[in-house]
Amino acid sequence: MEKVVLAYSGGLDTSFCAVYLSKIKQLEVHAVMVNLGGFSAEEIQKTEERAYQLGVKSFHVIDDAENYYQKCIKYLIFGNVLKNNTYPLSVSSERVFQATAIADYAKKIGAKSIAHGSTGAGNDQVRFDSIFQILLPEVEIITPIRDLKLSRNEEIDFLKENGFEINFEKSQYSINKGLWGTSVGGKETLTSNISLPETAFPTQISKSEPEELSITFEKGEIKAVNGQEFSKPIEAIQFIQEIAQPFAIGRDTHVGDTIIGIKGRVSFEAAAPLIILKAHHLLEKHTLTKSQLFIKDQLSLSYGNYLHDGLVLDPVMQDMEALFESSQKTVNGIVKILLKPYHFSLIGVESENDLMSSKFGSYGEMNKTWTEADVKGFSKIYSNALSIYHQVNNKN
Amino acid sequence: MEKVVLAYSGGLDTSFCAVYLSKIKQLEVHAVMVNLGGFSAEEIQKTEERAYQLGVKSFHVIDDAENYYQKCIKYLIFGNVLKNNTYPLSVSSERVFQATAIADYAKKIGAKSIAHGSTGAGNDQVRFDSIFQILLPEVEIITPIRDLKLSRNEEIDFLKENGFEINFEKSQYSINKGLWGTSVGGKETLTSNISLPETAFPTQISKSEPEELSITFEKGEIKAVNGQEFSKPIEAIQFIQEIAQPFAIGRDTHVGDTIIGIKGRVSFEAAAPLIILKAHHLLEKHTLTKSQLFIKDQLSLSYGNYLHDGLVLDPVMQDMEALFESSQKTVNGIVKILLKPYHFSLIGVESENDLMSSKFGSYGEMNKTWTEADVKGFSKIYSNALSIYHQVNNKN
Amino acid sequence: MEKVVLAYSGGLDTSFCAVYLSKIKQLEVHAVMVNLGGFSAEEIQKTEERAYQLGVKSFHVIDDAENYYQKCIKYLIFGNVLKNNTYPLSVSSERVFQATAIADYAKKIGAKSIAHGSTGAGNDQVRFDSIFQILLPEVEIITPIRDLKLSRNEEIDFLKENGFEINFEKSQYSINKGLWGTSVGGKETLTSNISLPETAFPTQISKSEPEELSITFEKGEIKAVNGQEFSKPIEAIQFIQEIAQPFAIGRDTHVGDTIIGIKGRVSFEAAAPLIILKAHHLLEKHTLTKSQLFIKDQLSLSYGNYLHDGLVLDPVMQDMEALFESSQKTVNGIVKILLKPYHFSLIGVESENDLMSSKFGSYGEMNKTWTEADVKGFSKIYSNALSIYHQVNNKN
Amino acid sequence: MEKVVLAYSGGLDTSFCAVYLSKIKQLEVHAVMVNLGGFSAEEIQKTEERAYQLGVKSFHVIDDAENYYQKCIKYLIFGNVLKNNTYPLSVSSERVFQATAIADYAKKIGAKSIAHGSTGAGNDQVRFDSIFQILLPEVEIITPIRDLKLSRNEEIDFLKENGFEINFEKSQYSINKGLWGTSVGGKETLTSNISLPETAFPTQISKSEPEELSITFEKGEIKAVNGQEFSKPIEAIQFIQEIAQPFAIGRDTHVGDTIIGIKGRVSFEAAAPLIILKAHHLLEKHTLTKSQLFIKDQLSLSYGNYLHDGLVLDPVMQDMEALFESSQKTVNGIVKILLKPYHFSLIGVESENDLMSSKFGSYGEMNKTWTEADVKGFSKIYSNALSIYHQVNNKN
Repeated sequence: MEKVVLAYSGGLDTSFCAVYLSKIKQLEVHAVMVNLGGFSAEEIQKTEERAYQLGVKSFHVIDDAENYYQKCIKYLIFGNVLKNNTYPLSVSSERVFQATAIADYAKKIGAKSIAHGSTGAGNDQVRFDSIFQILLPEVEIITPIRDLKLSRNEEIDFLKENGFEINFEKSQYSINKGLWGTSVGGKETLTSNISLPETAFPTQISKSEPEELSITFEKGEIKAVNGQEFSKPIEAIQFIQEIAQPFAIGRDTHVGDTIIGIKGRVSFEAAAPLIILKAHHLLEKHTLTKSQLFIKDQLSLSYGNYLHDGLVLDPVMQDMEALFESSQKTVNGIVKILLKPYHFSLIGVESENDLMSSKFGSYGEMNKTWTEADVKGFSKIYSNALSIYHQVNNKN
Repeated sequence: MEKVVLAYSGGLDTSFCAVYLSKIKQLEVHAVMVNLGGFSAEEIQKTEERAYQLGVKSFHVIDDAENYYQKCIKYLIFGNVLKNNTYPLSVSSERVFQATAIADYAKKIGAKSIAHGSTGAGNDQVRFDSIFQILLPEVEIITPIRDLKLSRNEEIDFLKENGFEINFEKSQYSINKGLWGTSVGGKETLTSNISLPETAFPTQISKSEPEELSITFEKGEIKAVNGQEFSKPIEAIQFIQEIAQPFAIGRDTHVGDTIIGIKGRVSFEAAAPLIILKAHHLLEKHTLTKSQLFIKDQLSLSYGNYLHDGLVLDPVMQDMEALFESSQKTVNGIVKILLKPYHFSLIGVESENDLMSSKFGSYGEMNKTWTEADVKGFSKIYSNALSIYHQVNNKN
Repeated sequence: MEKVVLAYSGGLDTSFCAVYLSKIKQLEVHAVMVNLGGFSAEEIQKTEERAYQLGVKSFHVIDDAENYYQKCIKYLIFGNVLKNNTYPLSVSSERVFQATAIADYAKKIGAKSIAHGSTGAGNDQVRFDSIFQILLPEVEIITPIRDLKLSRNEEIDFLKENGFEINFEKSQYSINKGLWGTSVGGKETLTSNISLPETAFPTQISKSEPEELSITFEKGEIKAVNGQEFSKPIEAIQFIQEIAQPFAIGRDTHVGDTIIGIKGRVSFEAAAPLIILKAHHLLEKHTLTKSQLFIKDQLSLSYGNYLHDGLVLDPVMQDMEALFESSQKTVNGIVKILLKPYHFSLIGVESENDLMSSKFGSYGEMNKTWTEADVKGFSKIYSNALSIYHQVNNKN
Repeated sequence: MEKVVLAYSGGLDTSFCAVYLSKIKQLEVHAVMVNLGGFSAEEIQKTEERAYQLGVKSFHVIDDAENYYQKCIKYLIFGNVLKNNTYPLSVSSERVFQATAIADYAKKIGAKSIAHGSTGAGNDQVRFDSIFQILLPEVEIITPIRDLKLSRNEEIDFLKENGFEINFEKSQYSINKGLWGTSVGGKETLTSNISLPETAFPTQISKSEPEELSITFEKGEIKAVNGQEFSKPIEAIQFIQEIAQPFAIGRDTHVGDTIIGIKGRVSFEAAAPLIILKAHHLLEKHTLTKSQLFIKDQLSLSYGNYLHDGLVLDPVMQDMEALFESSQKTVNGIVKILLKPYHFSLIGVESENDLMSSKFGSYGEMNKTWTEADVKGFSKIYSNALSIYHQVNNKN
């Protein structure tokens, strides 16, 4: 039997694929699950058991959260990347790293084909297709749900016919939980004018008293939270999430352009990502030069777009990452944040690299290192080009 | 006596200038106040009376709010401009328009010199100097406070010596109220790590029940608020401000690069500007193409920087405004916003130009205008370049 | 019989399509030829006669050169657009305007389908497909050459079998002549390391004595050449081409990314386009501000890419054109060029809007409108931010 | 006596400074000359002798060409940097590296002040002032020529009065020779409409027979020329210059914005720089992805502007250099160039990293790795967004 690697999550779509590929297509199915920090050991064990019941030949978990952080989340923080100034790219970034890990695995075990459970209506199909074709140009890509155009009920019926009475909870919302945020789609997000009810979000508010949080950055990376050091930044991110989540912080709705050209709308909650991004950005405002901030802002737009569009294997990503990395040398210090119900505010920073040092003159206060004559000369020369422009062009 | 035009606000600095220029310098002082929507008729009348007491020869008010909206605020909305992704450029934008109006006035009355009360430590001095030099290269610029390096107390003493016992309230904070937001500076904003106490803001929270607000845009401009039509957008802005201000929405602290090279920090409250900018941006996400959003985002960075840095007379501003204007053709519709204490969220939009029309396929749902084979072909060609790149460069 | 509109040029591919669609597919073929300035009246008449012989029901010529100039060439000049800093987008720009004109015609006559002769290996197929789908989403697109994967010889055989012994000259090179340059592809351009022999270019050198040329621009558009006024800029372009072509100027080879992901290489000769673009750019260097030049350079990169990739119907193109148009207000004056065998040099400009007026100080010479103290003050403040940066970060 | 470091070239201005500072100002003058590859051992020796005659306490040569290449020229090549698409930044880049080397020296010997011979009318004064203030904020900057507003003749008279009858050739042109090009200014460059006569350039044409040249790049750096390997890229550059200079290649005139706001015009000859930049760019077109080329083009504009404006000490420069460096991994191969009188053309490239490999389908030829159906699907999805846009907005 020919080997197929199946990108497996244990949901309805990939359960269907497991049975369909092994029973109908007579393939040797190797299910692979990529854990980027969103699954617990218990969830994984259950998923494994079920997978074997569904007929897979092997089940493999790739623990790739550290790699995901090192190759992706880190740069999203360095770049203060929010797609359309709103969305931390929670799902988008996960998919492309899952796809990459699965392609590596398929190569290792010499699979002739690779399957994913995407439908024909979203971004994920292109992300998976594309990364597999780039990394494994000789390997066939199989997408049963997309090819057979199956509805949810048809999939359930097929599973029943094949002896699997699995209780897939009929949820109104499709929820996608990950290290860098949880997306929630369905019902209201299919309209333009209604927002999700609070109950649709996995987290319900449970804290109401304001709480101060401090994040320590070293070269742009999180080193400590509330004074507690973390050797692994992903643990720090998870710790911040635990603290901030009960405030129901970081909820919003992203409206954007899908890879396939339609507009898509999805809600999300991402307390830790939004707090971290805003705290990091504030620290940069204190420690980077004006030009660094400007160039980074420009590149972040492109970086977020390429990542969203599944183009992580374009070497331009590494090029931009090199710039981001270089810019973080002085991004050191502590940022204090005030957490409140549904929102947060930034209190301030303490940094040895703070360029707003009062030693060099304070804004609006009597200054120390230049004279009023210096500023007059500056203004004169600063205006020179435009003064000439207006004299040449508005002559009368 | 030679004529000097004095940029006049009625505060301590410009009161000093009025006396100093008329009494000591023996100039014919023509005080000019530019009202961009921040001053009431009553405030203006008081200011006028005081000005004459201080020895000015004439007092003139330029009502320039409409022009300010048409030449500046409108484009800040079109461009979703927030300096460093935070600050709506409240004061920055006012200063340059005040300077321009004053220069026009000085030209009209044939003044030989023009005076402003800026100190030597901020952005305003450069904005005033620069715009006067560009528009009136032959006119002398006089800046008594900067040149004499006077402290607040020295100014008060001088006024007393000259017979003026004015009670300038000794405030810890310097507050600057305008159509596009109110800035608050002093004490905490001179540090990096402490934020303003709530009491420092002019507005105190007085509403706690969530309230829905709707804004109707036509070609990117506000046409109605809560269904009530406005022929003048500035009145719509003021109306939104009245509604949203009691929620204490739109408070934040801006940290940024001054024109003179130091970092500056200033807090602000700007309920209406932030609500309008975010509502407008959401409507654009629904009605503009991906490329329009990308190009606009790139230009907004530069537009905000140039405006902040007083470079409004660079013709590049008009060029960018032409692009912004062109992009607003389809930015029509209603945006619904939910106002809550200290923050707000966007509910959704209704627009005839909404590109997220379910007619053309819904994200994540079974689609209507393309087939699964189309997407497979798309993915294939979409990946072509990177597939070749990896085959050429990772050969083994 | 159902109506099909055939994008017709009279070459082998579209001749095949004419016979195939009428005889085999039994469609009522309406051949349309879009003349953007590349075809003479004589050529068109011959093409028409042949078309009717091949069985078309009607033959229509759309003279669209003026529209092509007004909607495209003009902006390529305003934007100084050279793809990858080399290629004036000769063919790319023609195709998209031909496609648009053909789509309009198909709509007018109520055609149910539209056919083009593109193969499956280039950019043109996507440009045609894409513009037809955008403008006529309900109309079927027929591409016989691509679908049947026909070789040149198979097409000739088919025509013979159907009674057409047409002598299609067997050329090594595929040549595409247009208003904005002539492309030459084949043989050497299929390699990376060999360039075309001189004989492959349609124009052979016939002038060797240097010749001066002058171009007068008004708001960025050509108004006169060598003092001779032109009311139609396309006639001015053709006149420049006549003068410069015998010098074999403007030959080069473009290597770039096709829409379908592979790299493509094509040679071209484009004397007039290159001379006009470089002359226009020089005039801009004299008449635009630094910021205008910077912003225009940034947008030109995107504008050229979108046009090349067939995305002219994205409204972002009009947005960028609005910016380009706004920037040309002061681009007035005469540019003098020296034509020499195979190359040209720019002599200089004369312009009332020249910002390099000696009235305001000459570079490197004793200046007039500022003092040495002004520059010292300027340098001081200009260095402030970086001085602080280095003091904060390199402390020891 | 207090120590002053004098940036010394041996020309009239710095000779004046040497005498003025030692005799009139009674300072201990330490003359420093920074050789970036433009001076021969013989020239240096003569300059040294003269310096001691003029009264300097010490004379020191800093051989900094290798550092200049490693920290500057290398990145100008990586970034294909041509200011305003014309000028290789010959003088601009030299000045800032000379300033940096001089500042280091002043620090080492503990000088209390630092002097340069710039006039008050150019870019160099700001470059020198600025870099000294950034690196040595406590050190005084002395600029005698600027401060005393001296003319050439006044300087000569002063030297005579002090016993120095030096024969400074009275040249019409100021010529500045360096590794990365030679600038020529004066007379015609002070106008807008006349170009330099051929005789004004230091090199006169002496070769007329076309000659082939090959340059081998490894990670973007020159490794060999005509097959001859070079361990030091600066020697390779000099070798290319020797070969190409007799063709009078690389002459042009730069018109641009000075730091002080006026427009400046300067001619230059830079055979090696232009050939290297164009050859390198061609190799990139074959070996980089579309996105890499796009992002690099955008950054190059800023990189060139910052360098020109003397802002090399902004950390953003290192950030952009990190991106440039990262992008060069695959820029390997040989570029062949044809040298001809006054111009050159690019023949082609040979590279193992060439993405235009015929294995993956040739442009315009029958392809290998995708089907016509793939392209049709691609076109469909590719057009989706704009098709929706036009259906939504052009409804009738």
